[in-house]
Amino acid sequence: MEKTKSPLGYRFAAMASGIKPSGKADLGLIVSDIPANCTGVFTQNRIIAAPLQVTKPRIAAGKCQAILVNSGNANACTGSPGLKVAEDCGALVTENLGFAPELVAVASTGVIGQPLSMDPFISSMSELAEKLDNQSADDVAEAMMTTDRFAKVSFADGNINGHPYRILGLAKGAGMIHPNMATMLGFVMTDADLGPAQLQRLLGPAVENSFNSITVDGDTSTNDMVLLLANGAAKNTIVVAGSDDEEQFAASLQQVLTDLAKMIVRDGEGATKLAEIKVVGAQSCEQARIVAKAVATSSLVKTAFFGEDANWGRIIAAVGYAGVEVDPENIDILFDEVMVAKDGLYVGSQVEEPATAVLKKSEFCVTINLHQGGGYASYYTSDLTYEYVKINADYRS
Amino acid sequence: MEKTKSPLGYRFAAMASGIKPSGKADLGLIVSDIPANCTGVFTQNRIIAAPLQVTKPRIAAGKCQAILVNSGNANACTGSPGLKVAEDCGALVTENLGFAPELVAVASTGVIGQPLSMDPFISSMSELAEKLDNQSADDVAEAMMTTDRFAKVSFADGNINGHPYRILGLAKGAGMIHPNMATMLGFVMTDADLGPAQLQRLLGPAVENSFNSITVDGDTSTNDMVLLLANGAAKNTIVVAGSDDEEQFAASLQQVLTDLAKMIVRDGEGATKLAEIKVVGAQSCEQARIVAKAVATSSLVKTAFFGEDANWGRIIAAVGYAGVEVDPENIDILFDEVMVAKDGLYVGSQVEEPATAVLKKSEFCVTINLHQGGGYASYYTSDLTYEYVKINADYRS
Repeated sequence: MEKTKSPLGYRFAAMASGIKPSGKADLGLIVSDIPANCTGVFTQNRIIAAPLQVTKPRIAAGKCQAILVNSGNANACTGSPGLKVAEDCGALVTENLGFAPELVAVASTGVIGQPLSMDPFISSMSELAEKLDNQSADDVAEAMMTTDRFAKVSFADGNINGHPYRILGLAKGAGMIHPNMATMLGFVMTDADLGPAQLQRLLGPAVENSFNSITVDGDTSTNDMVLLLANGAAKNTIVVAGSDDEEQFAASLQQVLTDLAKMIVRDGEGATKLAEIKVVGAQSCEQARIVAKAVATSSLVKTAFFGEDANWGRIIAAVGYAGVEVDPENIDILFDEVMVAKDGLYVGSQVEEPATAVLKKSEFCVTINLHQGGGYASYYTSDLTYEYVKINADYRS
Repeated sequence: MEKTKSPLGYRFAAMASGIKPSGKADLGLIVSDIPANCTGVFTQNRIIAAPLQVTKPRIAAGKCQAILVNSGNANACTGSPGLKVAEDCGALVTENLGFAPELVAVASTGVIGQPLSMDPFISSMSELAEKLDNQSADDVAEAMMTTDRFAKVSFADGNINGHPYRILGLAKGAGMIHPNMATMLGFVMTDADLGPAQLQRLLGPAVENSFNSITVDGDTSTNDMVLLLANGAAKNTIVVAGSDDEEQFAASLQQVLTDLAKMIVRDGEGATKLAEIKVVGAQSCEQARIVAKAVATSSLVKTAFFGEDANWGRIIAAVGYAGVEVDPENIDILFDEVMVAKDGLYVGSQVEEPATAVLKKSEFCVTINLHQGGGYASYYTSDLTYEYVKINADYRS
């Protein structure tokens, strides 16, 4: 497989350190040639894993030069010994690469509540550092996998005053019924030149419209984090806040994150379809998000997608319990361009064939128009293809 | 199969009317010989099906003599024609049995958003009425089934001053990932003598600790309802409010509803285990419920149950995202009597064998002690046994 392109000034390494009993790759390292400006988004879970406790204040300081990530053990609920492991792991990187410990971010994903030993890190670190010149972001993405069926990498580029820049994103996470319940890690690197506060301002909305649009807000694992690094190695003019350049950069960033988020949805076990649940005409974008989420996480809706059944009744039922005031007699539902319900009522049997044709596609959009205002939001979801859905997918009797 | 015992003064009938294309039983009728005192609990969904619109005000008036229930079509999102069907169905019962229309409750379950024709009702009603003397509550429970794999009936009895009374409950609903998303119907009949306000006072908490402890509060289908009828046919002394008799009756009622709720959990597709998630030591019972619900609805926890894996890390992660302030370093987790985590930390590998033995049972209890106060609550859940769980159930790598 061809290597994913990479922004300038970053190097990557990955290997099997023995944390995973399977012997698969479980350790990854990302290094920027110079300290990068950075920002991050971290779990909302009340229980915060050791690596996040170590990494959060470092990222908050605005500079990062290396990310060390392991899979196979989350180093969560491991008490003060776990905290020491997270700190010592960072120190190992420092020793081997020679830069300040506060520039090292550490991340873990895997089983919670099992002690994480330093041994695999100690025995692997020098070899890992040596690999930095010969490996790619794809290798790191692979070493981050837990229940993931495939590694997740996305790349976008653009230019500022004719000077090209690049954005690369790696993610880990498999979309399940509640995708948020498994750890989601995202590492995004660019060679454009942006400041920490600027990065923070851009990362928030980009995460909201991507990773947080496949997961339930606040319902996150003990280990979730998204880091964004900008090392300026493209040597283009700094991206001026509020400029068209910044807007273009923000769009590229959004593209990378949405791409990764969709990959996470597609990685739901057995998922065969990717559906956008688009709510429009809501009283506010916030209300639209609430409704979109209720529909996107409805297992009955998801099983209907699998059954390729234009079962709009399940959709409107989910709209009804979302907790938002709606007017049942003023709701339209479309599968792509095909309207199946108008003013809360079935359009008629003539729509069954075209609506079913939409559902047979591997990617489609369900639009729900609440006719209340200008609020809109999209959530991404997959079909539920488990054995049990045979009951629900065919269920119209 | 032996018929379930029944309270005095109720008759039952069921048949296939043709609403279900499969030709299975889809129409049920419950009649009390005399008008019964009654109360009900109805869906919180913003979109309310036609039969509930008709039935709610009638039940609110405190008297009911008949319940007509159909499966195969929910008569929801069917506009004013649907409302007329619900009213006309009630009128058909009235015509055939000769009592006032406001004494007839109607209930529907099945597909949403499809017009429901009167034809099956018209052609079946006289035959249904004739069957009243020869059929049982079990037949009605069967006619209520949609995705259910088995009919749900529970019976309890007690006595007041030496005079026996009986409570019979029928339910429809199959526990899924969000069990609340499929319609739940519950009809409870007693021959004890209680007033409508008294029934209402007793039904609320009984539903809270049963059906609402397997579902997400407020997240209900368009058609959910639980009706409780008391016809006094046992001719025992009236159950005095606040008396020991009332307390005993309340306990019997709770037993019937909890029994039915557990059956709904057991009816989850492929479910092989029934787990009680008991949260104790919370700041309040409300907070305990929030935490219990988060754990009980976690698909990662449920897959670990299926994998018979004492994966307490998934449990504590769900506790952490429940949205309640907890002290991670002061949480104990037990599988039945086996403590696997104390003060938020793993007790040690010596607990794996006894904890796994608990998980191998078909019914067990997970206790989560938050050590914050006296609040407690229980939720009932099943394991997730779908194909996809093979990934998560064995996942500790």
